Amino acid sequence: MKFGGTSVADLTRIERVARHVAAEVASGKEVCVVVSAMAGETDRLVGLAAAAAGEGLHRNADVDTVVSSGEQVTAGLLALVLQREGIAARSFLGWQVAMRTDDTPSAATIHHIDTTTLANTFKQGEVAVVAGFQGVSPDGRITTIGRGGSDTTAVALAAALKACRCDIYTDVDGVYTSDPRIVASARRLDRLTFEEMLEMASVGAKVLHTRSVGIAMAHGVPIRVLSSLTEPGENGACTLIMDENDIIERRTVSAVVPSRAEARISLLGVPNVPGKSGIIFTALADAKVNIDMIVQSQARAGESANMSFTLKEADLSLAQSILAGLKDEIGFTDLMADQDVSKVSIIGVGMNDHSGVAATMFAAFGKKGINIHNISTSEIKISALIPADYTELAVRTLHDAFGLGEVSEGGA
Amino acid sequence: MKFGGTSVADLTRIERVARHVAAEVASGKEVCVVVSAMAGETDRLVGLAAAAAGEGLHRNADVDTVVSSGEQVTAGLLALVLQREGIAARSFLGWQVAMRTDDTPSAATIHHIDTTTLANTFKQGEVAVVAGFQGVSPDGRITTIGRGGSDTTAVALAAALKACRCDIYTDVDGVYTSDPRIVASARRLDRLTFEEMLEMASVGAKVLHTRSVGIAMAHGVPIRVLSSLTEPGENGACTLIMDENDIIERRTVSAVVPSRAEARISLLGVPNVPGKSGIIFTALADAKVNIDMIVQSQARAGESANMSFTLKEADLSLAQSILAGLKDEIGFTDLMADQDVSKVSIIGVGMNDHSGVAATMFAAFGKKGINIHNISTSEIKISALIPADYTELAVRTLHDAFGLGEVSEGGA
Repeated sequence: MKFGGTSVADLTRIERVARHVAAEVASGKEVCVVVSAMAGETDRLVGLAAAAAGEGLHRNADVDTVVSSGEQVTAGLLALVLQREGIAARSFLGWQVAMRTDDTPSAATIHHIDTTTLANTFKQGEVAVVAGFQGVSPDGRITTIGRGGSDTTAVALAAALKACRCDIYTDVDGVYTSDPRIVASARRLDRLTFEEMLEMASVGAKVLHTRSVGIAMAHGVPIRVLSSLTEPGENGACTLIMDENDIIERRTVSAVVPSRAEARISLLGVPNVPGKSGIIFTALADAKVNIDMIVQSQARAGESANMSFTLKEADLSLAQSILAGLKDEIGFTDLMADQDVSKVSIIGVGMNDHSGVAATMFAAFGKKGINIHNISTSEIKISALIPADYTELAVRTLHDAFGLGEVSEGGA
Repeated sequence: MKFGGTSVADLTRIERVARHVAAEVASGKEVCVVVSAMAGETDRLVGLAAAAAGEGLHRNADVDTVVSSGEQVTAGLLALVLQREGIAARSFLGWQVAMRTDDTPSAATIHHIDTTTLANTFKQGEVAVVAGFQGVSPDGRITTIGRGGSDTTAVALAAALKACRCDIYTDVDGVYTSDPRIVASARRLDRLTFEEMLEMASVGAKVLHTRSVGIAMAHGVPIRVLSSLTEPGENGACTLIMDENDIIERRTVSAVVPSRAEARISLLGVPNVPGKSGIIFTALADAKVNIDMIVQSQARAGESANMSFTLKEADLSLAQSILAGLKDEIGFTDLMADQDVSKVSIIGVGMNDHSGVAATMFAAFGKKGINIHNISTSEIKISALIPADYTELAVRTLHDAFGLGEVSEGGA
């Protein structure tokens, strides 16, 4: 069971978390709970550490020592509340588990999880409350594991413990066909494959991080996404994320995911000479700028070409300054940046079995006068880059076009 | 070097702490720094843990896990500030040192300190910043060491590392002949023996805890008490606490220490039968109530006696209810409690060499009309229990009577 920052924001919420844990214990389960820092604590601690470290020292074992204390406090508090309610429990920090990582500060990779101590804890009938987001390096320093945070801790622990499943408690009761704030008819999905969840996370759905889904997929750990804001038993709703083979009826399209935090860079007049795109994308990759949706215009030999690609809006100014510095080497004539774009993606494991998905998408957009700048596809995903003003219209149009508002799942 | 909560209350103060550390490093020292939690943090964390634990669970390994995070944050922050200022440094938590304790939650005893890791840190030219107040139990749980807190950590580390001295930075620049808020002519003492400091701490002087002084005395680690609120080099003032043999000129009386947090219990009509006082003091000791200044009135065989003793005001109601429960067994007729008392003590290693100290005290009190309830003495201390209203008058009277305001020390 994993509970995020809003689920443990104060003692009242931690007490509700304890009731969820108690319900699992009562059903005869051996329970391992992973907790995040209380909402706002990580930001406070990162702020303190950043002010202490000054420029250029933000990834550092001492920063991790400071920041990891947030999860430490929550783990101790939840163990105490459980004990008060008569449930045997104890807290574990990353080094106590031990959750062994490499020694990359603030972005450590989990190498190995010792399960002996946790197994003994279960044998003694105790609930293990583990501080998320943290591990211990080979030289005994505290590390934090960066992206995906406590979700990643939880899924990695579930895999190491060969848990029957990993329950991710959050402030929504599952994964939806689309953002309910945009699409009134958006429905909670009862089931979803790892691949679909991975694509949804990669195009901007915030419910789970790609890293945790990737680990779950690699180890076949089913994930349930469910709400911590209701009492146990009050709302049985959840989304089960599982292996494709275990889902009998595949939907063509499962979800429509908008992402507004996109930007587009176009380079005009790039000499049509081999190696130019290598220079561009190597420089951006070195600066850890992720690139998506690359389009290069056709050009005859000797003529210049136009090239455009999308990237996260947050990386735009960095990418612009890198490319400006390479202007002579690349030889482009103009650089155009556009932040008024957004990406709308449709995702579904049935997509590769069905022809006509892209055609349906284009036809639906055409009817509503939505212009498509760029397209990119994967086995189970089609993304379209469109003018940002059309985002909600495009999401609603696709949600309707693929019948996502209609209840049509069999036993799911 | 040890810095308490007010010395590290915010980032500006932590930066000043870093300058004190830098000054020691610049003078060629290998430096180990012990830090407390930022002022207010321990109270906040204790409050959270107490609310989570509810009644009766306050001493618990998970409480210690929560509370110890305060020192963890400060240690990380100071290491970061030192690094920013170009001084190689790293933080150590209790388990990283390792500071090995027993497994008594919230009041652990330090059993052994591994110095290998710290020695390697010094060898690499790094400053070790150690989180105070915490250790690790034999089964790998975080413990806190209770009374004396980070002072005790610092002195224990200094002893284990065979440090040339232990500098306790605080919000005053040393130990004074008396409380300057009461006695205008109170002077900072340049030197003081361990025994004097121990007696001063035991009768209520707050600058150092008896536990840390006891460890320093046992291991012969000189302590300096000095101010963290001035810049390094700005104020060389301090008090050096050291072995008696190293102090050439002994003062008769070094300091006058008031303690208002006293109370007195009188039991009237206690049957003069052997074993009664054993019942009383065993019951109080079992409840960890410390007793001081016991006076028993003379009584002929077969008659009843009156007995009175002093204790900390905070323990009064507990002691009253324990004794009330034993009324029949002890057989006293009445219990009287008095909180309007205070204890004034004079301390000095020269006292056992000099006759007349007590006589001077009584005469001085008599001249000012100060009534003495009780007296207790040790080798180097005389304490008088007096009506609380006379506290300041009594302190000023004794400070004058023993000439403490006059500068008379030789080279000290």
